Amino acid sequence: MPQDHYREIREVSDENPQLQPQLELESDTIARLMDLVEEEDAQALDALLAAQDGVRIAHELAALPAPVRQEIWTHVPAVLQAEVLDELDDSVRNSLLENMTPESVVQAACEMDQSELVDVLESVSDELAEAILQSLSEDERSAIEVRMSYPEDSAGRYMSEEWIAVRADVTLETVARYLKRLDELPAHTDGLMVVDRQGIYQGKLPISRLLTGRDETLVSAVMGAQEQSVQVTTDASDFAPLFEQYESESIAVVNPEHKLVGRITVGDALDIIREQADHQVMQMAGLEDDEDLFAPIIPSAKRRLFWLGINLVTAFMAAWVIGLFEATLQKVVALAVLMPIVASMGGIAGSQTLTLAIRGLALGQINAANTRWLALKEVAIAGINGVVWALVVGAMAWFWFQDLKIATVLGSAMIINQFAAAVSGLSVPLVLDKMGIDPALSGSVILTTVTDVVGFMSFLGLATLVLL
Amino acid sequence: MPQDHYREIREVSDENPQLQPQLELESDTIARLMDLVEEEDAQALDALLAAQDGVRIAHELAALPAPVRQEIWTHVPAVLQAEVLDELDDSVRNSLLENMTPESVVQAACEMDQSELVDVLESVSDELAEAILQSLSEDERSAIEVRMSYPEDSAGRYMSEEWIAVRADVTLETVARYLKRLDELPAHTDGLMVVDRQGIYQGKLPISRLLTGRDETLVSAVMGAQEQSVQVTTDASDFAPLFEQYESESIAVVNPEHKLVGRITVGDALDIIREQADHQVMQMAGLEDDEDLFAPIIPSAKRRLFWLGINLVTAFMAAWVIGLFEATLQKVVALAVLMPIVASMGGIAGSQTLTLAIRGLALGQINAANTRWLALKEVAIAGINGVVWALVVGAMAWFWFQDLKIATVLGSAMIINQFAAAVSGLSVPLVLDKMGIDPALSGSVILTTVTDVVGFMSFLGLATLVLL
Repeated sequence: MPQDHYREIREVSDENPQLQPQLELESDTIARLMDLVEEEDAQALDALLAAQDGVRIAHELAALPAPVRQEIWTHVPAVLQAEVLDELDDSVRNSLLENMTPESVVQAACEMDQSELVDVLESVSDELAEAILQSLSEDERSAIEVRMSYPEDSAGRYMSEEWIAVRADVTLETVARYLKRLDELPAHTDGLMVVDRQGIYQGKLPISRLLTGRDETLVSAVMGAQEQSVQVTTDASDFAPLFEQYESESIAVVNPEHKLVGRITVGDALDIIREQADHQVMQMAGLEDDEDLFAPIIPSAKRRLFWLGINLVTAFMAAWVIGLFEATLQKVVALAVLMPIVASMGGIAGSQTLTLAIRGLALGQINAANTRWLALKEVAIAGINGVVWALVVGAMAWFWFQDLKIATVLGSAMIINQFAAAVSGLSVPLVLDKMGIDPALSGSVILTTVTDVVGFMSFLGLATLVLL
Repeated sequence: MPQDHYREIREVSDENPQLQPQLELESDTIARLMDLVEEEDAQALDALLAAQDGVRIAHELAALPAPVRQEIWTHVPAVLQAEVLDELDDSVRNSLLENMTPESVVQAACEMDQSELVDVLESVSDELAEAILQSLSEDERSAIEVRMSYPEDSAGRYMSEEWIAVRADVTLETVARYLKRLDELPAHTDGLMVVDRQGIYQGKLPISRLLTGRDETLVSAVMGAQEQSVQVTTDASDFAPLFEQYESESIAVVNPEHKLVGRITVGDALDIIREQADHQVMQMAGLEDDEDLFAPIIPSAKRRLFWLGINLVTAFMAAWVIGLFEATLQKVVALAVLMPIVASMGGIAGSQTLTLAIRGLALGQINAANTRWLALKEVAIAGINGVVWALVVGAMAWFWFQDLKIATVLGSAMIINQFAAAVSGLSVPLVLDKMGIDPALSGSVILTTVTDVVGFMSFLGLATLVLL
């Protein structure tokens, strides 16, 4: 009996695209798409794509090599294009937009919601943006222009223009009757927005209270007047955590006069948290936040060339420091063998502190009150690590080269560089953050420069003093 | 007029703890808490903590030095403790649990929902876990035991045991009347679960359809029979993306017989996405996913010591390779000056490929169909980068040491190591993933070993061939 039901639901679901992702493995579809492109079987491509929903197609496009992706995109049904574009990361979306005819970009743009449309307008050429704007109604155009006047990543950029508003002085029965006249509620409607005649936001009527409350109860009696609202200029990094902390699916966005202008939803928060997360890991490696894994070779190579160039400066600074001690190295070649150990261990320890500090800054955990304690903690850990590994590498070096002086120099340099790593691992991101520079991007290069320079300088410098 | 309204809402909100985070800067409260602990002003501490809600206290505790945190925790009102513990990362929560009396742990545990309780049971001592279990009712205890039998990170571990179920053959009016008898709906209720007499899941009745549908309509006519459901054993990494892709706030969890056993919500998805994100960045630095920035010194130092020890093996392998060429270095000391450049540039390029590959694996973008193209792309980029920077470093080395042979050796080694970096940056994570080892943790150590060894070996090896 239960088995029958299971089958029944699966059968029903076959007609519905939402469940399809579970029906065939995505990797199989991707392999099939690549084969069909190679065989130039346009008909089969059309059929395969028409059978899928936009979310799934977007996920497949992101996992297809750039040239194949462009070919397949031309077979995606026009009605799905806006949805697919909405699902894609900016980098992949822009690569597709670049190769579309202006007409089809304009057509897809008409299907987009305002928040996505603004993203697209900012990434296409000025002429194309103008063409898209001209295709909109006057109301839509002015709404878009207001939206574009808000700061990047602000609530005003993310907010949805769809919500249901009610007055505080009506009964729940009146509200329920009003809702019956609608076809559906906007996505992520966990409550109705309560506003006064001037459109000033007064609170939220949770759906839960609407459903469980008595018919004759007034909205004002059960609405949450104390509900969070955010200003239209509030930054994503400030409002996204509210969704994590409080179990809310939507939050009102108000202008400085406290007039309701939009609604940010938990769907936005999911996107923002994913992006913030990618930010640290990608920036620390000198990559774009949404770097396209399957981007064409030339643009990828260009970006990476730049990052290697920056790091080459660090490498040459290290080489320059070593060069200062050429005479010492000439006399004691064992130093050349051991010197990378000090620099490398410093780099590892420093990047641990750096990673923690950047994450702490992103989570808003580091402030004036606790920085001193944090610095003491990191320095203490560096002391313990430094002494322990100084003894170990010293012993190993002694065993290897049978020279107590070299062993002592190596151990001492290790301790010095562990301290340098802790101090710079914490202070570099803090200072960069104060200066308004993103520590995730430039922190690791600066840190490596410090640990390399201090590492080679302390080891070879001490060696010159002690051994010569 | 609008200004008046704004003030009114702010005043209303003063009575409500939810809005308090906006009223005083958190860093000020943290500074005040630290001062009060120093002054041993227990009364003021009690008052300051009683005036805040659990979410805010949790955020403050996470940003307080470990010793202060323990002291402050003893002043957190008992009624808030379960909520605070629920908000905290595991590492911080466990540090607090360790210092609580068994009685107060048991007391707090009684307030927790099942999903959190399982987390706590798994992190406390066996005796304490037993004491907590004994304090539960028989029903609760058996529910917890079933839950603990599900795999870690499965839907069964995350799911909420609260939902509202209705039958398919009743009218919307009946459903509405039934809801009026309840006090409130469970959090994240975006729909009612439709089940049959045996409890078999049949679909979801979205709240939107309930509110906008006609009274006499049957649930079966408007419910979403094709709604996603997930198996109780489905892994978090598989179900969390469903919330990103489809605008849903809750998804039914079913057992193999398709019986409804729970509900995962968008709140879980937010936690999971945050954790996944932290995972890559923290593991790549050898830190715990939720490493406590303000942990006590000794435990932190222990974990870091271990990571440095692993990396020391890499450093000594590099030293050993250099040691093989002592004779060469003795004769041409310029080689010692230049050799870190090749290894360092290889490490940087390799970690770019590695970061992209680990993220691609996490997002499910890499599969059998596209790996070959990806490998060709990364190798092609390595070729471009290698040749460009080989020419640059070659030219600089020539200028510096006036020796064309050294310059040629440096450039050639650079090209070789860029290829080694690309190949290992992609193959190391893929192989580790196939072997079921987390590439985020061990990938970077293995990669650095490859780029260091190949870097020093190719540079010094070529130099030995060409120069001697």
